[in-house]
Amino acid sequence: MEQKVVDLTLEKALEQFKALDEKISHLTSISGLIDWDQKVMAPKKGRNTFAKAAGTLRTEIFKLSVSHEMGQLLQFLTSKENSLNLDQVTKAKVREYNEYYQKSKSIPADLFQEYSVLTGQANDAWEEAREKNDFGRFLPFLEKIVAFKRKFAEIYGYEDHPYDALLDEFEPGLTVKKLDPLFAKLRESSVQLLERIQNYGKSTPDHLFDQPFEVEKQKEFNRFILPIIGFDMQAGRLDETVHPFELTVNIGDVRLTTRYLKNNVRSAMFGTIHEAGHGIYEQHVNPEFEESVLQRGASFGIHESQSRFLENKIGRSNEFWNYFYPHLQSYFPNQLGEYSVEEYYRAVNTVKPSFIRVEADELTYNLHIMLRYEIEKGLIGGEIEAKDLPVIWNQKMEEYLGIIPSTDSEGVLQDVHWSFGGFGYFPSYSLGNLYAAQILRKIRKDLPEFYRYIETGQFSFIQDWLKENIHQYGKLYPPNELIVKVTGEELNADYLVEYLEEKYCEVYGI
Amino acid sequence: MEQKVVDLTLEKALEQFKALDEKISHLTSISGLIDWDQKVMAPKKGRNTFAKAAGTLRTEIFKLSVSHEMGQLLQFLTSKENSLNLDQVTKAKVREYNEYYQKSKSIPADLFQEYSVLTGQANDAWEEAREKNDFGRFLPFLEKIVAFKRKFAEIYGYEDHPYDALLDEFEPGLTVKKLDPLFAKLRESSVQLLERIQNYGKSTPDHLFDQPFEVEKQKEFNRFILPIIGFDMQAGRLDETVHPFELTVNIGDVRLTTRYLKNNVRSAMFGTIHEAGHGIYEQHVNPEFEESVLQRGASFGIHESQSRFLENKIGRSNEFWNYFYPHLQSYFPNQLGEYSVEEYYRAVNTVKPSFIRVEADELTYNLHIMLRYEIEKGLIGGEIEAKDLPVIWNQKMEEYLGIIPSTDSEGVLQDVHWSFGGFGYFPSYSLGNLYAAQILRKIRKDLPEFYRYIETGQFSFIQDWLKENIHQYGKLYPPNELIVKVTGEELNADYLVEYLEEKYCEVYGI
Repeated sequence: MEQKVVDLTLEKALEQFKALDEKISHLTSISGLIDWDQKVMAPKKGRNTFAKAAGTLRTEIFKLSVSHEMGQLLQFLTSKENSLNLDQVTKAKVREYNEYYQKSKSIPADLFQEYSVLTGQANDAWEEAREKNDFGRFLPFLEKIVAFKRKFAEIYGYEDHPYDALLDEFEPGLTVKKLDPLFAKLRESSVQLLERIQNYGKSTPDHLFDQPFEVEKQKEFNRFILPIIGFDMQAGRLDETVHPFELTVNIGDVRLTTRYLKNNVRSAMFGTIHEAGHGIYEQHVNPEFEESVLQRGASFGIHESQSRFLENKIGRSNEFWNYFYPHLQSYFPNQLGEYSVEEYYRAVNTVKPSFIRVEADELTYNLHIMLRYEIEKGLIGGEIEAKDLPVIWNQKMEEYLGIIPSTDSEGVLQDVHWSFGGFGYFPSYSLGNLYAAQILRKIRKDLPEFYRYIETGQFSFIQDWLKENIHQYGKLYPPNELIVKVTGEELNADYLVEYLEEKYCEVYGI
Repeated sequence: MEQKVVDLTLEKALEQFKALDEKISHLTSISGLIDWDQKVMAPKKGRNTFAKAAGTLRTEIFKLSVSHEMGQLLQFLTSKENSLNLDQVTKAKVREYNEYYQKSKSIPADLFQEYSVLTGQANDAWEEAREKNDFGRFLPFLEKIVAFKRKFAEIYGYEDHPYDALLDEFEPGLTVKKLDPLFAKLRESSVQLLERIQNYGKSTPDHLFDQPFEVEKQKEFNRFILPIIGFDMQAGRLDETVHPFELTVNIGDVRLTTRYLKNNVRSAMFGTIHEAGHGIYEQHVNPEFEESVLQRGASFGIHESQSRFLENKIGRSNEFWNYFYPHLQSYFPNQLGEYSVEEYYRAVNTVKPSFIRVEADELTYNLHIMLRYEIEKGLIGGEIEAKDLPVIWNQKMEEYLGIIPSTDSEGVLQDVHWSFGGFGYFPSYSLGNLYAAQILRKIRKDLPEFYRYIETGQFSFIQDWLKENIHQYGKLYPPNELIVKVTGEELNADYLVEYLEEKYCEVYGI
């Protein structure tokens, strides 16, 4: 291997790097597909055995990503002299692998191994704890995970706040310093708006959803809307799972899942639109990035901006339902025949504080996230200890949402994220909302007929804009560069605050 | 690596061998699953890209199987001194890897590469040739493939006939010397029996199948019978494809596919039972062989014996339909209400020479195979040249089956096997029939109530016997040892000849 480095010319290095990138991308694509399969298709009895096979593949990918060869190539390609001679695309690829390499290499192998075993066990413990409403069952694992994460943050390094090191894993470049003022502004205005809605808002007819909606009809309706809103069914699938998700095998094979509930027609409908937002993003990535590390969305936050844009900015707009509601009525004449589109629109935009994040409306959703953000920041910063979480959780729920869960299962134990060590993940969800509002402002400027396109079912104008301005780039730009490139401004909270204010004052006649 | 060999103790070698076996088995399991996915689930637009990813994984598996490490371990473990100390299971694993290693290593890398490219192109050429009924389009590829296969046979080595070297790839230990007399006997009696049926047989009411059978009902019926005949649906799936197949991910995840045709109810029904025969075999392999090279059926021929046993020996028996026909009638009262079970039984056992192998009945099927066997033997032995195949094919069709196809597409171009170089594969199909008849004789001896079990739907007695005597062993025994272990005799044609004679004299009242 050493001799490679000595002999290495730029040409050779690029060739080797391309081959390694392709191999890692191929195996990653396979790893994604088999995860999808095990969640969606695999029969029950085979899954435990297959988990070991899947683990072998993941280990192989990890080994390649932190291999001696990768290290040598990255060192060579990031040298002052050579990096000047790289084209933009190669530079981006090197950036992506280098970030992962530096982080992964910095964690001693035995520490990483110990941590992997721990999170494996923690997941089981969390499931049990949630089922039995027993936080104490999960606590020892959570304490250890937090200790690991604090250690990792020190190893990764940071400028101001240790939590920055973890945020960076999900949203490169994001820091507490940047996020604090954004969230403070959003929280203040959201809490205030929520109060006004509760005190002065004209109630919405959301009881219209308290009816059974035949699952077969729901399926048909979901399949009917997907191609219209821009999801290419020749380059994707729609299946069913308990927890909906989107999985990209390649840009010609993007898989969505959703969940149909007879007594909750909203769940599958908006779930499918949400996942389609993720999926259309991936279908639109530049085909030249196929089989490379760039063939995915820019970051968790940017990805979430695309799913939320489609789900909320488009899918919960008046114009969307002006177009689709007559169709929906034809699928469910008994349930919806007597309700007007205005009533339906107000119903799908009902604001109601609730305990469970994943069921929250567009306004209160961010409050759920900020609660988690405050807790994570405190845990990693050392101001909060894991054992105090049930109390802190409930205090913050009351402060932000005005309600207190009656059990920890409905409270601090509701999310899976901490059990797999995903500290820094939650903020992505609200970042998505912030980005989406900022993008909405820009697209309305570029496409003055934005809402008319929606109202007339001409989604291709909108999807073309998103593809041209965001989707095609895949991981070429880091998220903070991308948002400036798209909107001309750094991420800020003004647009989401304005959007929420405007929308809910209209919906609630305030 | 060298230092490993010097240091190698038996304990260390076994540990390394186990780890390598596990890794190869894991990746092979994944490779199987993704092939299944691309045939059954993947959307059209992603398949080309994914084919490259799948190729990368296959290459990885190949590299591990012929790696320096594997070579060293095999050398160490097959040494006189060490092999004495191996347990039976390890010995079998070493045998399996060693066979593959020796063959693969003996082909020079550039020759293998050239051959891989050729077969890739040959497949396209064959598809085009068949579509356009133009043998000349396929001929140059076929000639080259035959030349390669002759060369490979010389490299692999053989005692009597070069074709032996190729047979051995599909049925270890099988030779022309063994096969010739078996096939001669079977051919003679089959041709004669066919003549008698055609001259003296009482015609069967197979026009009862000339009706449309609703596909949805067919699906329900297939799902109804699968668990009854012994396929564990918690450890498997049933899906749809144009070309039915069985694919094992692991013993808890065995996947069948079938094809539903409105105008051919037999196709899906017997197709599903056939694939279930393969699948039940794999579900029954000893769980201790999981994640090792032994976790599959013994050989192509033994595997086919299990599918044919279930499809024909059981699924086309009088007793099978005594049990299932009332159910089938309840699914299709309009189509079958007026036909008795006797009529139905005779109809599903109709003998009729036809051009296409995959649609042939239980008697004429073997004649299709023997025709191909004669041709392959001649091609590899040098007595036949590829350019003469259309003429030879038609001559033999007339000789064996009394009919001549009007086009090459219906004749010499009908099968895919030669385009991927699968010389030596075809005999497995008839071997399966031979083995199955021999096993039938033995199981009837061990289970005197064999047919009563079928007639009363008590398939578990039969499946338990098959599991105990055949399935559990996976690849532990080579096929020639296994058949002796199971039946006390070497493979012979007597039982199939007797079975066919007895069965069709009854069906045709001769």
